[in-house]
Amino acid sequence: MDYSKLKLSEEKVFKDPVHRYIHVRDQVIWDLIGTKEFQRLRRIRQLGTTYFTFHGAEHSRFGHSLGVYEIVRRITDDIFKGRPNWNEKDRMLSLCAALLHDLGHGPFSHSFEKVFNLDHEEFTQQIILGDTEVNSVLRKVSRNFPKKVAEVIAKTYENKLVTSLISSQLDADRMDYLLRDAYFTGVSYGHFDIERLLRVIRPHEDQAVFKYSGMHAVEDYIMSRYQMYWQVYFHPVTRSAEVILTKILHRAKELHDAYYEFKYQPVHFYSLFEDELTLQDYLKLDEHIILYYIEVWQEENDEILQDLCTRFINRNFFKYVEFDPAKEFKIHNQLEKLFQEVGIDPNYYLVLDSSSDLPYDFYRPGEEEERLPINLLMGNGELKELSRESDIVDAISGKRRTDHKLYFPFDLIKDETTHAEKKKQIVELLERF
Amino acid sequence: MDYSKLKLSEEKVFKDPVHRYIHVRDQVIWDLIGTKEFQRLRRIRQLGTTYFTFHGAEHSRFGHSLGVYEIVRRITDDIFKGRPNWNEKDRMLSLCAALLHDLGHGPFSHSFEKVFNLDHEEFTQQIILGDTEVNSVLRKVSRNFPKKVAEVIAKTYENKLVTSLISSQLDADRMDYLLRDAYFTGVSYGHFDIERLLRVIRPHEDQAVFKYSGMHAVEDYIMSRYQMYWQVYFHPVTRSAEVILTKILHRAKELHDAYYEFKYQPVHFYSLFEDELTLQDYLKLDEHIILYYIEVWQEENDEILQDLCTRFINRNFFKYVEFDPAKEFKIHNQLEKLFQEVGIDPNYYLVLDSSSDLPYDFYRPGEEEERLPINLLMGNGELKELSRESDIVDAISGKRRTDHKLYFPFDLIKDETTHAEKKKQIVELLERF
Amino acid sequence: MDYSKLKLSEEKVFKDPVHRYIHVRDQVIWDLIGTKEFQRLRRIRQLGTTYFTFHGAEHSRFGHSLGVYEIVRRITDDIFKGRPNWNEKDRMLSLCAALLHDLGHGPFSHSFEKVFNLDHEEFTQQIILGDTEVNSVLRKVSRNFPKKVAEVIAKTYENKLVTSLISSQLDADRMDYLLRDAYFTGVSYGHFDIERLLRVIRPHEDQAVFKYSGMHAVEDYIMSRYQMYWQVYFHPVTRSAEVILTKILHRAKELHDAYYEFKYQPVHFYSLFEDELTLQDYLKLDEHIILYYIEVWQEENDEILQDLCTRFINRNFFKYVEFDPAKEFKIHNQLEKLFQEVGIDPNYYLVLDSSSDLPYDFYRPGEEEERLPINLLMGNGELKELSRESDIVDAISGKRRTDHKLYFPFDLIKDETTHAEKKKQIVELLERF
Amino acid sequence: MDYSKLKLSEEKVFKDPVHRYIHVRDQVIWDLIGTKEFQRLRRIRQLGTTYFTFHGAEHSRFGHSLGVYEIVRRITDDIFKGRPNWNEKDRMLSLCAALLHDLGHGPFSHSFEKVFNLDHEEFTQQIILGDTEVNSVLRKVSRNFPKKVAEVIAKTYENKLVTSLISSQLDADRMDYLLRDAYFTGVSYGHFDIERLLRVIRPHEDQAVFKYSGMHAVEDYIMSRYQMYWQVYFHPVTRSAEVILTKILHRAKELHDAYYEFKYQPVHFYSLFEDELTLQDYLKLDEHIILYYIEVWQEENDEILQDLCTRFINRNFFKYVEFDPAKEFKIHNQLEKLFQEVGIDPNYYLVLDSSSDLPYDFYRPGEEEERLPINLLMGNGELKELSRESDIVDAISGKRRTDHKLYFPFDLIKDETTHAEKKKQIVELLERF
Repeated sequence: MDYSKLKLSEEKVFKDPVHRYIHVRDQVIWDLIGTKEFQRLRRIRQLGTTYFTFHGAEHSRFGHSLGVYEIVRRITDDIFKGRPNWNEKDRMLSLCAALLHDLGHGPFSHSFEKVFNLDHEEFTQQIILGDTEVNSVLRKVSRNFPKKVAEVIAKTYENKLVTSLISSQLDADRMDYLLRDAYFTGVSYGHFDIERLLRVIRPHEDQAVFKYSGMHAVEDYIMSRYQMYWQVYFHPVTRSAEVILTKILHRAKELHDAYYEFKYQPVHFYSLFEDELTLQDYLKLDEHIILYYIEVWQEENDEILQDLCTRFINRNFFKYVEFDPAKEFKIHNQLEKLFQEVGIDPNYYLVLDSSSDLPYDFYRPGEEEERLPINLLMGNGELKELSRESDIVDAISGKRRTDHKLYFPFDLIKDETTHAEKKKQIVELLERF
Repeated sequence: MDYSKLKLSEEKVFKDPVHRYIHVRDQVIWDLIGTKEFQRLRRIRQLGTTYFTFHGAEHSRFGHSLGVYEIVRRITDDIFKGRPNWNEKDRMLSLCAALLHDLGHGPFSHSFEKVFNLDHEEFTQQIILGDTEVNSVLRKVSRNFPKKVAEVIAKTYENKLVTSLISSQLDADRMDYLLRDAYFTGVSYGHFDIERLLRVIRPHEDQAVFKYSGMHAVEDYIMSRYQMYWQVYFHPVTRSAEVILTKILHRAKELHDAYYEFKYQPVHFYSLFEDELTLQDYLKLDEHIILYYIEVWQEENDEILQDLCTRFINRNFFKYVEFDPAKEFKIHNQLEKLFQEVGIDPNYYLVLDSSSDLPYDFYRPGEEEERLPINLLMGNGELKELSRESDIVDAISGKRRTDHKLYFPFDLIKDETTHAEKKKQIVELLERF
Repeated sequence: MDYSKLKLSEEKVFKDPVHRYIHVRDQVIWDLIGTKEFQRLRRIRQLGTTYFTFHGAEHSRFGHSLGVYEIVRRITDDIFKGRPNWNEKDRMLSLCAALLHDLGHGPFSHSFEKVFNLDHEEFTQQIILGDTEVNSVLRKVSRNFPKKVAEVIAKTYENKLVTSLISSQLDADRMDYLLRDAYFTGVSYGHFDIERLLRVIRPHEDQAVFKYSGMHAVEDYIMSRYQMYWQVYFHPVTRSAEVILTKILHRAKELHDAYYEFKYQPVHFYSLFEDELTLQDYLKLDEHIILYYIEVWQEENDEILQDLCTRFINRNFFKYVEFDPAKEFKIHNQLEKLFQEVGIDPNYYLVLDSSSDLPYDFYRPGEEEERLPINLLMGNGELKELSRESDIVDAISGKRRTDHKLYFPFDLIKDETTHAEKKKQIVELLERF
Repeated sequence: MDYSKLKLSEEKVFKDPVHRYIHVRDQVIWDLIGTKEFQRLRRIRQLGTTYFTFHGAEHSRFGHSLGVYEIVRRITDDIFKGRPNWNEKDRMLSLCAALLHDLGHGPFSHSFEKVFNLDHEEFTQQIILGDTEVNSVLRKVSRNFPKKVAEVIAKTYENKLVTSLISSQLDADRMDYLLRDAYFTGVSYGHFDIERLLRVIRPHEDQAVFKYSGMHAVEDYIMSRYQMYWQVYFHPVTRSAEVILTKILHRAKELHDAYYEFKYQPVHFYSLFEDELTLQDYLKLDEHIILYYIEVWQEENDEILQDLCTRFINRNFFKYVEFDPAKEFKIHNQLEKLFQEVGIDPNYYLVLDSSSDLPYDFYRPGEEEERLPINLLMGNGELKELSRESDIVDAISGKRRTDHKLYFPFDLIKDETTHAEKKKQIVELLERF
């Protein structure tokens, strides 16, 4: 029998706080969930270091991946099925791409990608196409099925309608993570009427679109997204934790490069440090492994590594001020010099961090990242770009907001047992902001 | 100034999905939360292996501890304050005991305590009384304050009213964990009207009691508790994960005792295996450390250890049948013999597990664990034991429910490449249940 | 084309707080909702006088009727469709019966039925079978369709499976009203996992049954029902409002019989008083009409009518004591006599009221009202009666709980400007309870 | 004892779906709730005809008034108490003004005010200052207390801080109604973090302000308000119901003026029609009374009155098209003429209706309605106007949105048994929009 159509004898159900239940009837999906590469997502938190700020945000990418699958399942089975522009053959492809879209995420992706120049999307491709349990399940569907799934996730698949379900300015990925992250953090933002959105989504030629009657639900989604970015994802304390984590990774690599003798050898990091990371090495990395090292490195002799690890584990983070590096490069130089002079290495202890977001934008051809706009389906069958119909979206459309912060260890600077005078100067400089 | 009365210049707030916000105004509480022993609770999940069954249940004991504190804070500050029987001097003591009551929990407590004969309550005592950051904060209140906090948690404190807030059949601990575990698992059970309970709780001579007008909320709590036990806490899949974890620990110790050469030396386990565990060793144990070992031990040469670890990591657990060992000891013996014969070690692969709960009981003097009943405060000031007033509680009062299961690796037994005949016998024996 | 299969060109949707959305795709259902008899349900509150106790409970039977329809629609379309024992021909019949099951309810049914010896179920039959807009819609399906719908509601329809969806110990009617009444009152009881129940409901020979795996959800439903009865439906203040309403109706009829000259003629009541009520008269009665009379009768000359109406409008109800009439008939006689003596007519001002409920019962042949038990569908296809499997349901099964109260106007008795001595005796007698 | 400080022996509690519980400890508040003028609010729906669109919106102004009181109680007792700028003497004044702010609302205020040129705020003043139960309770506080309460509601009270709690761009009134109307309609808009807003509200010299840290909660409130206005309050079906109601009132007055002989004499309307309405007459008007007349007038001989009443009762409303009267006055004239010619009176059956809202605005001196802006309290104690800090509020600030619709009875125009040709012309003209 056609494996892609094989149904479980009894539907399987996952209890999910966001969607109540996640339903699995397809053998392919069930088998994918059981692979070790997918189970690995249980060991990677959805929001990295955010749990230090919102203690409820301890949820993993496992639940989120199931959630995105469930949303696409509802779209394809309850809404798209039988409608023009929708090809039932793309159903299983969409479901698999939804389930697997985050498969290549590593622990604390943001910091790791920055420090080691990695790309989780690249690893997602490798896992799907390489010698893995996931690949062997997908291959049972057909020989070129893994390639197709990889293409959908990479946004190179020919049918853009399928792609738009997984990645666009209003896709299943974003719908799930906004609701899920709001639920687990406990914030009251991030809620929008997903039931309504799912009822008005329609397959169009090369994009999923939304019936005009659901415009207010789309507006609400845009606003929720805006609030979540600035209140949760870019929270300054979370970013402070990430600053420290990034510096731990930097320091460990620097020590390794300098032939420092670790008490606890970073065996899981070797290939990463040597820039020879294989897929198998990568798959062994998860948050337990990373946190194991950070915990044991609290006992290392290197003062900087030991201090940063202890700060991370005990949540003793850096403080911050608003600081625009473009305007204030002189003061930044002064601060760097003063940090050197008081014996606090500014490479590790004086850190600029910027966050930036564009809440929504219509298509601006030629821009570096061309964005597919959200289109509304009017009663007469025409499409209209969202910001033309919505005053409120128009008002914020294309308005990028950026925030710069300078992070530093206030406890060290405050400690006036040494270099009291210069530390006072540092404090004075920082207090201007 | 009196440290126990020192207030923060600005109230600190934690966003919490269960209580919306957790409020901290006392310097003592703020300092306790900042200790490394308390921050360690972030690294220990509230429900151990339950996240394998309910993927949302990834929350840690950190949030729960804050939650219990918040409930007691509301009771003392909003309800008890100024009432007869309540001594305002016990406020800070109650808050600290609430916050710290779970401090001694280790990773996967249930399994560890069973295998290594540990007692998390004993460690809570040691952390509070020993050379720790927590102890040094508590000592700043007064020299004998740590001892008092430890007594409240140990239920030996002279003022039983204080004790009853933290541990009784309806206490802040249970209120928080039922609501919290229901929230994170996403089940619809476990909800009861905590607002109502907090409004009707009153200080009585040696116990917190509940005004009669809140009886229905108390009933609802009892029912919620009942449902959570059987549907979440005793879920057979969770127990299957625990069975495997327990056997991993057994195997590792057995190998250690037999001078097996580990590829990855269990340095964090040495003192545990040798029965020389110090408090400092214990505090280093958390789920990241344990899961690090389970992950790397997938590469060990010992087949049993390697197999069990791989099962745990990839969620490939044992199957089960209902099995009453008292009635079926003959069949159990037969199965053990057959397992030996087909080369599957029954010490690791044929495991009995029992769960048992008493939903509520009134005081039955002389019983092994005397339980303080829940008392209702009548309009005339008298107390009445709950089950005398509530038909529904009376109906289930004192009725212990027990469940026995026999766990085994169905995949190995199914594999008929060897010992096909005897494996069929095993299957036949198991299919009777 | 077959009218019963006619679909709307675009699905219609009602926003509903309980089920999020109510979906209508069938022309028949849409037409029924538009009839004036169905729209009339907007003018009859779901919970009668309960809004005096829980101010949120102002919701009408209109929303409840839509809710019951929506539940049955989900059962038939999402669960039963295509399964053995289920005949797709019964779909539209089930939907109509669900939508219309409460059609005959009048304003404050409980009081009206008691005083005027009416039966709302009888009126439901008449509306469906008589000369009404509802009947003419139903007749368009087929000539004997109205009769079938009426039979399902009357529980005389041959296919008991269909009947059980609308009226049994766990039916769509109860599921909706428990959730809805909990929502609008705002109580935290009344919640159970309807998603789970709907997923495990199965068509059986002559009854809808529930898969064993959903037993805990069924238990939770039983407990919710129990709590709602005693905390909301039988709330003593609500009953006090009903006592007064009942006495208003009594008094108006008595005055009418005595040829009293009303300032505001009770034209809408004439046929009711004369026991000549027609269907058309009945359909004109709703809460606006009734409350209009109660409001204007505040200006009547008859002291009792005027007083009772003013009490009702301004929520100045009677007080109550627990009072078992069987045990205390002597005191009751004494009180009646004293009331007479102090000039307070005991026929209107000393009122016994009893509430009684049986939370669940299995089938007890020969009892006055034989109840169909809730059956669980076991893995092997057998049925087991709920209380045999559930300890908690077994514990309360068949246990009827009854509550008696004696209502009286405390303000009048307290007023010692006349008959001070005897009023003191009354107070003393009442204070015993 | 000072009546304004008298506490109830036991706190009274109302179960409320929005705030969980509403707490009353003050005798004054308890007495006010018991007055017949306040109980009357139970008979006036919060959202007028909205229940025809959102069937859950059947809630009355009674619950809303309690809700506004509860919010102000929390602000004064939990937040403002003891802070600079707050005078504890204003507490009871604020509570009473909050509770009574809507006291003068009549049934379907919007329509009645328009047709009869009434002003509910004027009646609120009269009830508070006139010969009422409310006035006599307030007078017990002090002789000029009623006047002060009236001034706060009229925004003429000298202490603008108190006024701003009840009426400003972010006040207790709006907070409650947005949450409450969202709850009862069941829409997913309208939610914002009231807990957060209440935690950051601070008394300032002449206004309540919000700490900067709560800015995102304020933004969320502004967005919720925007969504509620356009999706709930200005819903075109609701406006259609209002159009009909308005025309019923017009017709009844016109008939009265023309000495038409009513079957059911509009005795409750006489003084309204004659423009001699007294406070006592006004207080007798409520939705039961009005709906009584609309129901019985279905039997009147006047065709227009009878038709409009029947449409209202059976929810057979007018259809609509978008129609800007400024641009399209020619077509409007044509339509009026055609309506005349086909015998449909355009005065009753061709109705323009406009809705307009300004989501937020800062202070623009000299404008017709000067609006107090929302101010944020910065860390350094300065105030900043919201739109200067919030990009998203700035984007919509001062942008008025207006919507015009033309309503007409499509069923009558469609009916081509007479004037077929001209009706076709009407349809063609309308179809342009």
